[in-house]
Amino acid sequence: MIPARVIEAKRDGEALDPTLLRSFLEAYLRGEVPDYQMAAFLMAAYLKGLDDGETEVFVRCMLESGSVLDLAYLPGPRVDKHSTGGVGDKVSLVLAPLAAALGVFVPMISGRGLGHTGGTLDKLEAIPGFQTDLSLARFKRVVEDVGCAMMGQTIEIAPLDRRLYALRDVTGTVSAVPLIAASIMSKKLAEGLDGLLLDVKMGSGAFIPEERSASDLADKMVGIGRRRGLRTVALLTAMDRPLGRAVGVGLETAEAVGCLRGEGPPDLEELVVTEAAEMLRLGFPEVPPGEALERAATALASGAALERFARLVEAQGGDTRVLDEPERLRTSPERVDVAAGEVGVVVEVLPRVLGEGVIALGGGRVLMHQPIDPGVGFELRVVPGDEVRSADLLGVVHARDANGARVGADALRRAVRLGRGGEPVVRRALVSRRIDGVGG
Amino acid sequence: MIPARVIEAKRDGEALDPTLLRSFLEAYLRGEVPDYQMAAFLMAAYLKGLDDGETEVFVRCMLESGSVLDLAYLPGPRVDKHSTGGVGDKVSLVLAPLAAALGVFVPMISGRGLGHTGGTLDKLEAIPGFQTDLSLARFKRVVEDVGCAMMGQTIEIAPLDRRLYALRDVTGTVSAVPLIAASIMSKKLAEGLDGLLLDVKMGSGAFIPEERSASDLADKMVGIGRRRGLRTVALLTAMDRPLGRAVGVGLETAEAVGCLRGEGPPDLEELVVTEAAEMLRLGFPEVPPGEALERAATALASGAALERFARLVEAQGGDTRVLDEPERLRTSPERVDVAAGEVGVVVEVLPRVLGEGVIALGGGRVLMHQPIDPGVGFELRVVPGDEVRSADLLGVVHARDANGARVGADALRRAVRLGRGGEPVVRRALVSRRIDGVGG
Repeated sequence: MIPARVIEAKRDGEALDPTLLRSFLEAYLRGEVPDYQMAAFLMAAYLKGLDDGETEVFVRCMLESGSVLDLAYLPGPRVDKHSTGGVGDKVSLVLAPLAAALGVFVPMISGRGLGHTGGTLDKLEAIPGFQTDLSLARFKRVVEDVGCAMMGQTIEIAPLDRRLYALRDVTGTVSAVPLIAASIMSKKLAEGLDGLLLDVKMGSGAFIPEERSASDLADKMVGIGRRRGLRTVALLTAMDRPLGRAVGVGLETAEAVGCLRGEGPPDLEELVVTEAAEMLRLGFPEVPPGEALERAATALASGAALERFARLVEAQGGDTRVLDEPERLRTSPERVDVAAGEVGVVVEVLPRVLGEGVIALGGGRVLMHQPIDPGVGFELRVVPGDEVRSADLLGVVHARDANGARVGADALRRAVRLGRGGEPVVRRALVSRRIDGVGG
Repeated sequence: MIPARVIEAKRDGEALDPTLLRSFLEAYLRGEVPDYQMAAFLMAAYLKGLDDGETEVFVRCMLESGSVLDLAYLPGPRVDKHSTGGVGDKVSLVLAPLAAALGVFVPMISGRGLGHTGGTLDKLEAIPGFQTDLSLARFKRVVEDVGCAMMGQTIEIAPLDRRLYALRDVTGTVSAVPLIAASIMSKKLAEGLDGLLLDVKMGSGAFIPEERSASDLADKMVGIGRRRGLRTVALLTAMDRPLGRAVGVGLETAEAVGCLRGEGPPDLEELVVTEAAEMLRLGFPEVPPGEALERAATALASGAALERFARLVEAQGGDTRVLDEPERLRTSPERVDVAAGEVGVVVEVLPRVLGEGVIALGGGRVLMHQPIDPGVGFELRVVPGDEVRSADLLGVVHARDANGARVGADALRRAVRLGRGGEPVVRRALVSRRIDGVGG
């Protein structure tokens, strides 16, 4: 294996022999292929693509570079969910306890927010005392006791993925579909799961906005799961608008708690129930789809999911008082009502403008490890299709100070696009496609 | 300047703002942009291209990273030639003294052979005692005394080019036309020249075989010269066959000496005279083309060029006896005549097969700094278009031993393709295009 020849072959658009690519990646792991050769390879792969066989080699080398969780001791099926990330996406906080209430074990390893989207770990940490930095032993105990546990990435899992991700991050090679697919799937395969649900966001607020690429990513991930014997289902879900009404770390946690208490909002509740039903059927394939949806809706409405979440918060050291008093999560001193100022129809709510607004308010991250303010953000009062009068509120800005309030109000006005009738409303189906890799 | 953003812009095919690209290259020089980011950038540039403005920034940063020779003390115009490299290309050895005999000063900085083509420095060192590793002071003295001097690359010139070349060499990014153009021109601009002749080889034996790419390279280099005020002419010359009859370091030097003694071969002599006339007119633009050709042919025929070469060899420590006895350069013990073995017409002589044959015989390099045997190689007896009978010789193999002789004979037979009438003979015009950047 001559590294320069491998790079040249990919540069010229050739499909690499699996054994050759494997040698290249293993030599990189051993430090024999330096970062500069890998960087050139990754750029060539970004521009010329990787086929399924090559992607498979990446998945395998990443997976085998670390350890795989042994969760066979659990007395039920292990199913996790992964979202590609979007604005207002607080699904995991509701979904994990809901799926646990349905008898599925959810060993969820999540990430932090970076760029215009928030991260599950940050939202959990908005709850005073909540710990996401668990030892593997404690994580496994919480999963067993509660039915779900939520923690950050550990160094034991897929270290090759971590090295490659760090390199991709600084060499303009993050957004390549096969590399994203391999990165996500290698980590999820390392969780020792029986089933995996993928929520692939699509639309202007997603990391991969274009429908074709998002769909391609979903297909690739489902294909990887199928080839490795992991039951995998992907849903393509709407990110042409924020999910729910809250955008901002603590505000989203508050909204998730509200959802667990049966208070909606409707789109969040619908997506959570849909996904919980999918997870139930990934764990128990014999349950018919209709029954799965019914059981999921019941477990949310009955308070069973909220009870699981309370146990989760307690097990991971958090203050459970937020469950009865979600107002504790709305900590910013400045709150500004933003009115429509004119008559019209909400034709679009731009998720990226709100996500970047959260960064501007100090509640998001541009660099890794940056501290964030969990209190700031937006609470929307409108969704696409709503008719508004001049005095109606578009939403409320939560800010640290008066200057933040001004910046936030400006972002909110730019995000909510009003039309005067005739203009079409931008609104994708909440779930536009379902890809089922279970049968394969 | 955020390096990852620069890489992403090039990845997406954008033309970079000159100031931004300059900052990126300067940060690399200072060690602030690491090799892995530059490697990703170079691969993106390889696949997406660099426009003239970007190439210009590369040239300038490479040039300004080192020093420029100050040859203003010379009492006449400084003109150099650069060839992109081909099989049997011994032009420089004849051309430099010939141009010097015409009143042009030739401060020639050359390279070593790598891959299937030979290098001028290796050919000069086939002359016992000849030194190519000169100090800059001695180099300048030889140019002044003899009219020409020939040495290897010095660390003073274009260090950024050297660093980038080393990186490109191991990251599959050597053969990008704009990067090649910038690399060549930055080094030549550092020679402090009044004029530059470029010999761009085209055909299967060239590093860039395709006509369109070779032509593009010539245009780009002439454009760089023009924009920087250097009179530059490029000739596209034939490399669909070897140049001359000898292929192999010492054998080519012997052939060059023969050419200086007026013994041809015709194609080498024609190209040398054509190029010497170009160099004369680059130094003295007032000389009409016809007169330039005549003066060049005369200086070769009169022995004036040979006399200059003798002074050059002496000034650089070489044994001048080779000039009267070129047989001293044919040092291999084994010589094998290879006959046609059938009746036919020579339709093609494949230069790459012969170049690789020289490597197989131990007379070429696959890795830098590898020692080579200057005695081995091929002396052809035929050119494309010749009719041969069964007993006629295709050529003579020079080898170290009997095994080498067998390997060489096999290569020679594969290189000379015989046809039986009707099949077209492969033979480009010796000079197929001339690009004149002088007027600009």
